[in-house]
Amino acid sequence: MIIAKGYAAQDPQADLAPWEFQLRDLGPHDVQLRIMYCGVCHTDLHQIRNDWYPGIFPMVPGHEIVGEIISVGAHVKKFTEGDWAGVGTMVDSCGTCKECGHDHENLCTNGAVWTYNSLGKDGLPTYGGYANTMVVHEKFALSVSKNLDPKGVGPLLCAGITTYSPLRRLNVGKGHKLAVLGLGGLGHMAVKFALAFGADVTVLSNSPDKREASFELGAHHFIDMSNASDADAVKGTFDFIIDCVSAPHGLNLYLGLLATGGTHICVGIPVEPFSLSPFSLLAGNKSVTGSGSGGLLETQEMLDFCAEHNITADVELINAKDIHAAFERMVRGDVRYRFVIDLNTL
Amino acid sequence: MIIAKGYAAQDPQADLAPWEFQLRDLGPHDVQLRIMYCGVCHTDLHQIRNDWYPGIFPMVPGHEIVGEIISVGAHVKKFTEGDWAGVGTMVDSCGTCKECGHDHENLCTNGAVWTYNSLGKDGLPTYGGYANTMVVHEKFALSVSKNLDPKGVGPLLCAGITTYSPLRRLNVGKGHKLAVLGLGGLGHMAVKFALAFGADVTVLSNSPDKREASFELGAHHFIDMSNASDADAVKGTFDFIIDCVSAPHGLNLYLGLLATGGTHICVGIPVEPFSLSPFSLLAGNKSVTGSGSGGLLETQEMLDFCAEHNITADVELINAKDIHAAFERMVRGDVRYRFVIDLNTL
Repeated sequence: MIIAKGYAAQDPQADLAPWEFQLRDLGPHDVQLRIMYCGVCHTDLHQIRNDWYPGIFPMVPGHEIVGEIISVGAHVKKFTEGDWAGVGTMVDSCGTCKECGHDHENLCTNGAVWTYNSLGKDGLPTYGGYANTMVVHEKFALSVSKNLDPKGVGPLLCAGITTYSPLRRLNVGKGHKLAVLGLGGLGHMAVKFALAFGADVTVLSNSPDKREASFELGAHHFIDMSNASDADAVKGTFDFIIDCVSAPHGLNLYLGLLATGGTHICVGIPVEPFSLSPFSLLAGNKSVTGSGSGGLLETQEMLDFCAEHNITADVELINAKDIHAAFERMVRGDVRYRFVIDLNTL
Repeated sequence: MIIAKGYAAQDPQADLAPWEFQLRDLGPHDVQLRIMYCGVCHTDLHQIRNDWYPGIFPMVPGHEIVGEIISVGAHVKKFTEGDWAGVGTMVDSCGTCKECGHDHENLCTNGAVWTYNSLGKDGLPTYGGYANTMVVHEKFALSVSKNLDPKGVGPLLCAGITTYSPLRRLNVGKGHKLAVLGLGGLGHMAVKFALAFGADVTVLSNSPDKREASFELGAHHFIDMSNASDADAVKGTFDFIIDCVSAPHGLNLYLGLLATGGTHICVGIPVEPFSLSPFSLLAGNKSVTGSGSGGLLETQEMLDFCAEHNITADVELINAKDIHAAFERMVRGDVRYRFVIDLNTL
């Protein structure tokens, strides 16, 4: 029996607080991680607050996990002790459906098992990365290069793959004008990937104080959307907009900024539905698409791409006990660009 | 000076009634049509009622026009007297912008001149096809094969191209499962084109009485969406849905019927915006796109394709004086599948 300690919400009204819980003993294909760092995703807050659907409590959030392998099951071949591994949004899937067969475990028809707030095949709740250790099937642990700074790796497993995946799927690259809407955890990763893919990158933000930060990240242009004439000047110009905003918002304004045939990619998850005028789509054959995380193969590809191009998230490291202050700052957008819990502080 | 007679709305509250109006004399590149038939599009009703924006009155609607060339300007090369020609939703564009350069005159950056309820470059209002004659630049008149039954040609210029264009753009064909939502003027053309392109075609409708009609058109399957278990059975199965419904509706139910990576194509124009949940897009990398009519090159391609495959709209011919009864039946969806005015009855 493995006892883990972490931070849990006992119910949707409760603050996160220290909690001890039990993990399964290692099966033949399981590995145990000593969690080093875990990113703080907006999703974590949505889930402990039951914003989307009734959750499973007590809940230990966290799905941007990087750690060191400290124990391996009898048949594990992918890892040895001392390796670094990452775990993202999921820890299991059926493995037999069409989606799993196409390496889209995140879209498993029979329901992926999420890293937390989910029930495993054994019927027991899963617990996430706001903890000192976890047990996971080797298939769902991704290899992490030791050339990368591990502090900035956790967010790659969610914010990273969520932006990498649609940009790759849509072949964004040289010759494309791409706008990143919202410069937060997702947005800053979108900027980094789009630059690495060769696109011309513009940051769109209602906060003029994001201008300098955008250029620091390497963006080519910045548009202050609170300035109507600046926004007007880029109407009809973008091939793609990647929309990283999780506050409720309409899409029509942004569809107007797309060139003919352009695509608006939604990766933020507002709690309210989008309002979408038919004319915004019709006038210029425009598209809206969405994307959420990615499959294992693509996530490993992304991590390898990051190792090759030295891409990690820009993070602010926090102590576990400061998680609620971090949530408050995250909601205000006051973080560059992702809080990451140092699990050594548990 | 050319005097035309037609049916016009004098204001948004008025019924259509006989009206005489003046057309420009033929310029060197103009042709004059004796209008034989004009389709009745839902758009016509929206525009005479000011549903979308304030219109230009008196308004002679109609943009699904087929007629015989009765006079040609001095430099016209494309037509000779006696030819058949079609005119769709537009009669002019700037000709110099990027969109016009890409044969997307319908998306002209400087504003296409619409066939009616629009101002021409001469500053004068344009008048549509609920009339006995029209004058149009030869570029905006499409060649119509005399092998086609002209009664069913008018609707090709709007309902036809509006469905043909996105199906072609998205390369819908063999191996694809496509659903047609709403079996009206647009929907029945979508069925005909999708069949001609080799797709597996399902009609989705809330009216079980559309079942027989769907099979008569050649559709392979019919789903009665008012039957929950029938609708459930096709969840996650379609590569494309072409949404031809112009009554207000949400998109989430239909996105759930799409397979991973599937695309929902909006060609109907509801007066209210769509409500679109981010999760509907994210869960399966789905897309929503729109399309409205098409450029001249593609419209001619569509007409040629129709001539080759003997495709026309299924229509109910009406006398001009019966237009309001036809509008009422159209709003109820009680037409197979398009009313067409026989302009000989003017």
